[in-house]
Amino acid sequence: MSEVAPEPVVLAIMTAGSRPEIPPLDGVELRFAEPDQTAEALDGADALLVWNFNGTGLDAAWPRAGNLRWIHINSAGVDRIITPQIVDSKVVVTNARGVLNESIAEYVLALILAFAKDLPKTLTLQQAHTWQHRPTQRLRGTRALVIGPGAIGRAIGALLGRLSIAVDAVGRTDRAGDDVFGRVFAPAALPQVVGDYDFVVVAAPLTEATRGMISAEVIAAMSPAACLINVGRGPIVDEAALSSAVQSRAIRGAGLDVFENEPLEAASALWTDANVIVSPHMAGDFFGWEDELLNVFLDNLDRYRHRKPLRNVVDPSLGFVPHDTDEPPTHTDAAQPTPGVS
Amino acid sequence: MSEVAPEPVVLAIMTAGSRPEIPPLDGVELRFAEPDQTAEALDGADALLVWNFNGTGLDAAWPRAGNLRWIHINSAGVDRIITPQIVDSKVVVTNARGVLNESIAEYVLALILAFAKDLPKTLTLQQAHTWQHRPTQRLRGTRALVIGPGAIGRAIGALLGRLSIAVDAVGRTDRAGDDVFGRVFAPAALPQVVGDYDFVVVAAPLTEATRGMISAEVIAAMSPAACLINVGRGPIVDEAALSSAVQSRAIRGAGLDVFENEPLEAASALWTDANVIVSPHMAGDFFGWEDELLNVFLDNLDRYRHRKPLRNVVDPSLGFVPHDTDEPPTHTDAAQPTPGVS
Repeated sequence: MSEVAPEPVVLAIMTAGSRPEIPPLDGVELRFAEPDQTAEALDGADALLVWNFNGTGLDAAWPRAGNLRWIHINSAGVDRIITPQIVDSKVVVTNARGVLNESIAEYVLALILAFAKDLPKTLTLQQAHTWQHRPTQRLRGTRALVIGPGAIGRAIGALLGRLSIAVDAVGRTDRAGDDVFGRVFAPAALPQVVGDYDFVVVAAPLTEATRGMISAEVIAAMSPAACLINVGRGPIVDEAALSSAVQSRAIRGAGLDVFENEPLEAASALWTDANVIVSPHMAGDFFGWEDELLNVFLDNLDRYRHRKPLRNVVDPSLGFVPHDTDEPPTHTDAAQPTPGVS
Repeated sequence: MSEVAPEPVVLAIMTAGSRPEIPPLDGVELRFAEPDQTAEALDGADALLVWNFNGTGLDAAWPRAGNLRWIHINSAGVDRIITPQIVDSKVVVTNARGVLNESIAEYVLALILAFAKDLPKTLTLQQAHTWQHRPTQRLRGTRALVIGPGAIGRAIGALLGRLSIAVDAVGRTDRAGDDVFGRVFAPAALPQVVGDYDFVVVAAPLTEATRGMISAEVIAAMSPAACLINVGRGPIVDEAALSSAVQSRAIRGAGLDVFENEPLEAASALWTDANVIVSPHMAGDFFGWEDELLNVFLDNLDRYRHRKPLRNVVDPSLGFVPHDTDEPPTHTDAAQPTPGVS
């Protein structure tokens, strides 16, 4: 039997409207705080559950985080939560890696099929009761480039491959292919290779390395027949350049679930372009997703209390879980918070 | 070398606007006729290429079909072409089986994903510049029932299976499952089993056995969470009962590419229901599909001239190619027209 830590204090930062049903937790003091009440509630907290990924107030509250050893973030992307103080600290950060992979992959396929089969135009014609036959695109034999071959990117690549789409990726370094990706290019190759693809799918975390990666230059190098899909983070794409490219028909279309600013401003031209599909950052959120996300936290809480290695440990300086694959977590993903340091 | 038949007369029935580029055919007399000119052009014709599946005028022209030995129909469904005279004759009928399987399967998946991910509502909200997050359905673990486990139905089942959807079918007889379908029910079981499925996909040919198969009773037995997809033929479904069921929210939605009457009447309530997707009989028609369809005919024409067995031979009394699988044609699908009989 492993040693059990003394009763830890867990602070859950949640807006009242989105609070999940958390079962009774013996041996844990569970506190709740709204994101703007983090400072008062943080005193003495050993662990933090960040339920809403838009903000925590943790930056200003950091002086009260002296007991903090572990932060669990309830999403795959941690860019809005990680602060320089966290990077410089020994606080262990974990995330919800895995839960949303498959639903995000399905969502990407839904967008790709909507473009391929001209579904938005079908719905527009339907509103006018207009019967207008058009041939559409067959996906078999098309090519997709996934930006970000992590767990989500791999799930996307695997699913697209099952429709006989040829899938390559852009990762941190150039490497040979594997069972999902034909090959993986380094970011510097993007302007040279991006023009070969029918679908460019952004599934990367937002880091200093990916911010602005889909630049005006990269967009200009895309095929006029290509669509850009973004389920990663808005600031990875030059949104103004993308909007211009779609409006001028320099590219075929864009399916966007994330934006530079969310919610997307009502005045944005992206809302009105017939070749853009705008959705409100919902790609991965399937019915029951909050229960599955909670289970990931509860599993890690159990591990924390029994001093077992935690799952889905993020490297705060990278901004994601290293050695990120679609395999079950291994020892390389696990870490045990060191008591008493922050 | 096999024996070559004397120069055959091939009559291609095509509307002028949809005439494909046919390469020069040595040793073949190729005639063209509009569907309403069939009678005059039919005298002495050995073979008929029916390019437009909506009609041929062949019924009235039949007395002039004395030389006719072979009819090639440029679609998978032959219901609008086969006449009682053809059934009673020894004319060999072939179709375009295979060309559209994969594109139709992709189209079915596009409709299923549109419902699962609530895409029509996303587009409606987009028109209003409204950011409204909703969780949506994850397909993994859902269940689909394919009506018609022929070549197209198998392609649909195989594709849905690749998204971890559990797929069963309704065929002519009850039988155990195979590598695509968990099991295959006889039509009589439909009212008892249909309620277990999230997606009911009609991919059957229109025959006397399938006409009206998705009756008011079957629709009433569907799950309130289920969608009906029809890429087979309109008269297989009781369209009035379906329209009522969708309007009253007795079922979740319908994705319809085929209708009792085509084009769908402008006054039909199906156009206006937010939970119905109406498309104009285009599911299988991918860019380049006419070239691939022409190649199927040209391959059979070459076989005909060299007295080899034809591919995709339809049983006119059944209304489809028997032993229909997604495998390459075998001897069971092939037949050689008998010269001089009709």
